[in-house]
Amino acid sequence: MSPLPALTSLYNPTVKYARSLHQRKIRYRERALLVEGVRLFLDAVGSGAQPTHVFVDEERLGSQTSRVRAAAGGARTYSVTSSVLDAIAETRTPQGVVAIFPFPELPLELPPGRAPLIIVSDSLQDPGNLGTLARSALGAGATALLLTSATVDPYAPKVVRAGMGAQFRLPIRWLDWNEPDPLLLACEHRLCARADAVTVYTQIDWTLPSCVVIGNEVRGISPQAEALLTGSIAVPLAGGLESLNAGVAGSVILFEAARQRRAIRT
Amino acid sequence: MSPLPALTSLYNPTVKYARSLHQRKIRYRERALLVEGVRLFLDAVGSGAQPTHVFVDEERLGSQTSRVRAAAGGARTYSVTSSVLDAIAETRTPQGVVAIFPFPELPLELPPGRAPLIIVSDSLQDPGNLGTLARSALGAGATALLLTSATVDPYAPKVVRAGMGAQFRLPIRWLDWNEPDPLLLACEHRLCARADAVTVYTQIDWTLPSCVVIGNEVRGISPQAEALLTGSIAVPLAGGLESLNAGVAGSVILFEAARQRRAIRT
Repeated sequence: MSPLPALTSLYNPTVKYARSLHQRKIRYRERALLVEGVRLFLDAVGSGAQPTHVFVDEERLGSQTSRVRAAAGGARTYSVTSSVLDAIAETRTPQGVVAIFPFPELPLELPPGRAPLIIVSDSLQDPGNLGTLARSALGAGATALLLTSATVDPYAPKVVRAGMGAQFRLPIRWLDWNEPDPLLLACEHRLCARADAVTVYTQIDWTLPSCVVIGNEVRGISPQAEALLTGSIAVPLAGGLESLNAGVAGSVILFEAARQRRAIRT
Repeated sequence: MSPLPALTSLYNPTVKYARSLHQRKIRYRERALLVEGVRLFLDAVGSGAQPTHVFVDEERLGSQTSRVRAAAGGARTYSVTSSVLDAIAETRTPQGVVAIFPFPELPLELPPGRAPLIIVSDSLQDPGNLGTLARSALGAGATALLLTSATVDPYAPKVVRAGMGAQFRLPIRWLDWNEPDPLLLACEHRLCARADAVTVYTQIDWTLPSCVVIGNEVRGISPQAEALLTGSIAVPLAGGLESLNAGVAGSVILFEAARQRRAIRT
């Protein structure tokens, strides 16, 4: 392979552009996000996404360099020093590659004959929780992940990492409670997870069009979400435990829905 | 309440003792751990555990000071400056209180008429994953959490925080594969979670005595665990997802077991 153009200065405009994507407002202006690390990068490309810029630390990548360069396709690809890569990356130990991808704009479509299963983050603040929820929603076959405006940015590097790149495979949309998505209103169940709910999550018929709202880690469900709900559900807890982590509670509920939907298909 | 004795120097022997508990080997020599933050502290006391030392930053605690002091019971309780508290704490923002508790030594007993449900961490390395697993195991009514020797320390502050203090309510034991606990061998199912397993986790009869092994984040299940297994199970994943986070996979399986066990009781 031909040698890559080198970027060695933090003052290079392309390096500055990449670093500016640490800021949420720049990400949304540019509609672009950073993807850090070999595994996430290859997975994003594997999902059909195309990077616009790829920054490679050939020394750190070693034998993986050719694989990463091949996956970069038509992206502008640069050889960078470790210090430049570390500056571009938001997370620690970016494992030799950071890339810029356009925001994934996945169509929000329902495969024919399948009821929607929607998960709503009602202002989750913890990057790990939102990432976990995105990953579990994808794995459980959910239709989409909807986010209220106070939710942590799903395209922040920490959330992308926690979601293991689910962002490139699961439709994600910002949600306006005043003008909620018709798909949401079409759901027969619009439920929130709440520790003190009387209905147990396994008592719900999840084969119907369903939506689950996971509330903020501290404040719980917002009044605007409340107004749209048809009920609430609890994951029964033993041992005097007050609550599960928000990402885990959502995951347990999503996989119960997947279980019921699998049972009906076979 | 009477004023507390003050500790203002990092060279005070009690402060040094507390700080030494950041080290795993000291924790095990002293059989003592640090608990950081008001919520974790009150929860640990609420579980019946008694602290030996409590360090209070009265300024940061504010109106919660009296509640914390009351909960401290007979512990040696000190007023410390913010800088001393920050030095004692391993985590950031310890919210005004750090306490030393003896290792919880919870009896490993089975309530009569209930089949054991054991979760094994086979060398989990991520504090968040082990904490999540401990919290979910408690919530799902598991009997015990067993750990292989290469597992991250369950009494490390980050794991205690991720586990929300489940460590004080769930029996936890180190496991020697060469001399496994009889409870483990008595399990009819000894299963590991593996993405490529043929059996789906919902096909298992979890009302039988069961044990689930969760493998290391990178290396998976160890050969020593393999040798004791009766089979493996998968959580089916949609959307091209390769795997779930180890803590989440364990949680989904544990709550399926809880669901089946609840169904049989009602």
